[in-house]
Amino acid sequence: MIIDIINKKRLGEELSYKELDFFFNGYLDGKIPDYQMSSLLMAICINGMTDEEIFALTKIFIDSGDVLEFSDIPGIKVDKHSTGGIGDKTTLVIAPIVASLGIPVVKMSGRGLGYTGGTIDKLESIPGYRIDLSDDEIVKQVHDIQLVVTGQTACLVPMDKVIYALRDVTATVSSIPLIASSIMSKKIAAGADKIIIDIKLGKGALLQTREDAEKLSDLMIKIGNFYNREVRTIISDMDVPLGKCIGNSLEVLEAIDVLQGKETSNSFVDLCIDLASEMVSMGKEISKEEACTMVKEALKDGRAYQKFLEMVQYQKGNLSQIKVSDHTFTVKAKTSGVLKKLDALELGKLSLSLGAGKESITDKIDYTVGIRLEKLVGEHVKKGEVLATIYYSKSKPNIEYDKIFGIR
Amino acid sequence: MIIDIINKKRLGEELSYKELDFFFNGYLDGKIPDYQMSSLLMAICINGMTDEEIFALTKIFIDSGDVLEFSDIPGIKVDKHSTGGIGDKTTLVIAPIVASLGIPVVKMSGRGLGYTGGTIDKLESIPGYRIDLSDDEIVKQVHDIQLVVTGQTACLVPMDKVIYALRDVTATVSSIPLIASSIMSKKIAAGADKIIIDIKLGKGALLQTREDAEKLSDLMIKIGNFYNREVRTIISDMDVPLGKCIGNSLEVLEAIDVLQGKETSNSFVDLCIDLASEMVSMGKEISKEEACTMVKEALKDGRAYQKFLEMVQYQKGNLSQIKVSDHTFTVKAKTSGVLKKLDALELGKLSLSLGAGKESITDKIDYTVGIRLEKLVGEHVKKGEVLATIYYSKSKPNIEYDKIFGIR
Repeated sequence: MIIDIINKKRLGEELSYKELDFFFNGYLDGKIPDYQMSSLLMAICINGMTDEEIFALTKIFIDSGDVLEFSDIPGIKVDKHSTGGIGDKTTLVIAPIVASLGIPVVKMSGRGLGYTGGTIDKLESIPGYRIDLSDDEIVKQVHDIQLVVTGQTACLVPMDKVIYALRDVTATVSSIPLIASSIMSKKIAAGADKIIIDIKLGKGALLQTREDAEKLSDLMIKIGNFYNREVRTIISDMDVPLGKCIGNSLEVLEAIDVLQGKETSNSFVDLCIDLASEMVSMGKEISKEEACTMVKEALKDGRAYQKFLEMVQYQKGNLSQIKVSDHTFTVKAKTSGVLKKLDALELGKLSLSLGAGKESITDKIDYTVGIRLEKLVGEHVKKGEVLATIYYSKSKPNIEYDKIFGIR
Repeated sequence: MIIDIINKKRLGEELSYKELDFFFNGYLDGKIPDYQMSSLLMAICINGMTDEEIFALTKIFIDSGDVLEFSDIPGIKVDKHSTGGIGDKTTLVIAPIVASLGIPVVKMSGRGLGYTGGTIDKLESIPGYRIDLSDDEIVKQVHDIQLVVTGQTACLVPMDKVIYALRDVTATVSSIPLIASSIMSKKIAAGADKIIIDIKLGKGALLQTREDAEKLSDLMIKIGNFYNREVRTIISDMDVPLGKCIGNSLEVLEAIDVLQGKETSNSFVDLCIDLASEMVSMGKEISKEEACTMVKEALKDGRAYQKFLEMVQYQKGNLSQIKVSDHTFTVKAKTSGVLKKLDALELGKLSLSLGAGKESITDKIDYTVGIRLEKLVGEHVKKGEVLATIYYSKSKPNIEYDKIFGIR
């Protein structure tokens, strides 16, 4: 039976709900070993899955754990997901904006395994901030302040945890059907009514081609339809990092700058406004234009920032104690011209080498290190001007200038 | 590095010798876990390998263990391999024929894991027969009687053992590049100068299409050229079982019938003569026609049978003690007509259920059970005539008549 199922997928045939259920739950229960699951995952990765298979797999994922229910909380619950990129601190900005406009936001975020921390790692750089809320605490907090950003509870889609851990070490992370069912099962299990997905595309992202990004977009919308959830997607650039800062404390501080209105016009701010507008449009069932006006107002008049402070306080974080390393040095332009390249992948690797990310589960993140880009792509720079400030802690890292920067 | 290599093959790119060596020897050394190897194997299985990769992998397999040397024994050493099928006892007939014509034959055979026993299991049904000869004993025996059929020594291609065990449980046995490098590495390591390969095609075989059989044939000839070994191939039918008997003792007795000239004209005898003629033609560097005449003479005048007896005696087997189960029953024709179908796969499954094969390494084979086909495909049968005799031991098996037999 196990071998027959792997063989079918090896030959590119469709697996039934029953076969997928047998295999994936057999794995979760420890009856099917890693080496058979990784063989099936690779066959899925190369030969793909039909829509029917993907719907079935999403259901199997959801059913593997708890499904949260917020139906007693009034309003449409809107969730947001990003497929991940370098310098992506979007959640820290948009969740408070949306909540400040009266739409309840429950956001369960993940940790990062890779070049930079995940949203939860970033929030942990705020000393005291609790990311381990129980289901009851989550429900109470949404009632009280309409906003929660916390870690995934252990009982939410346990299947995803074990499958993702195996995909991560068997070169099967890039499978679009597996990405889609992983994301969608988590969003649905977390109780979202409507979902906006930010699909990152480019050097610093999981997906490298527009074709793949569009496939993933179509697939998530289809899964959403199947489960009666409105899903909207944005495909956004990840050839260059998002915003100016990479690194956990630095990114929280940058998010605060945006919420305080100190940053108003870079591509990161634009993306935040775009995503928040989609969420408000879905949550209030109004046009995106109307929503956009409200979002900009909430930013301008400080409501969004107040909501952020409210959340941090409610979750016991102490913003005054957030720390950035004292050890810094700058990278200066070797020539004059227009900054054409800020390689997201190379900056991600640098961030990892500084200690801002982790390569294995046992690594510990250093919240204080990172990179601040002093010039963004498209800006004119003069030879000798500072391009970036590097915050390091243990030893001064080696900068591969030509791989990261390009001036013409 | 590990992930990069799997990713390359997932994308269908070519791996270098260095990459394959790192991965496969890393696995053999226990540094790379099963789940990463099975992921790579599935990617190979689906995306294939280039000739260069296959030559490299064959070398890595050969280099993983001892390589036997028979250069001090005069004459061209010719080896034979069959990709395996139901009722395949060819080695028991052709090895003695070829040796009786003065060509030294050292044949290391495998055990069966599947529907029926392998050649070594069959020989073990002769009480006392030793299949665990040491390298020294093998060399002495070839010197003395020009013929050895024994089990593979532990030090021969250890890589194949671990990789095959993993392929067997991860639905990756059917990969043509992996089959080719597995077979060819063992033949080359066992000291063969020239090799004949009997590629089985059909319901009871590993390969189901002529296209695949031809691909495998081309590949093994290419590997042979690369290693300066003449390789010839035969593609032979495995929709119906080979000969009349399936089961270990029964097959030995059938082989003896052929060697004694009691069976002279069925497709099994024809295949034996064909394969033996190829081997003699290669070993003596004469035409196949000349070789065929010699083969038929050696069968007719009893030289081949004498050589078989000599081998059995040398390896301490006692033919008079060979046992077949006393519990038998017959399957009778339900209609009259021409026997059109004797399904090899279904007969294989029946053989397994009788206990003639083994499903897992820990199962024990029952040498005394099996099936004797009393009618072969193409023969006229009358309703009520006996089609087959079933030798069972524990309990009378259930016969799925319509799946096995077809009369029109």
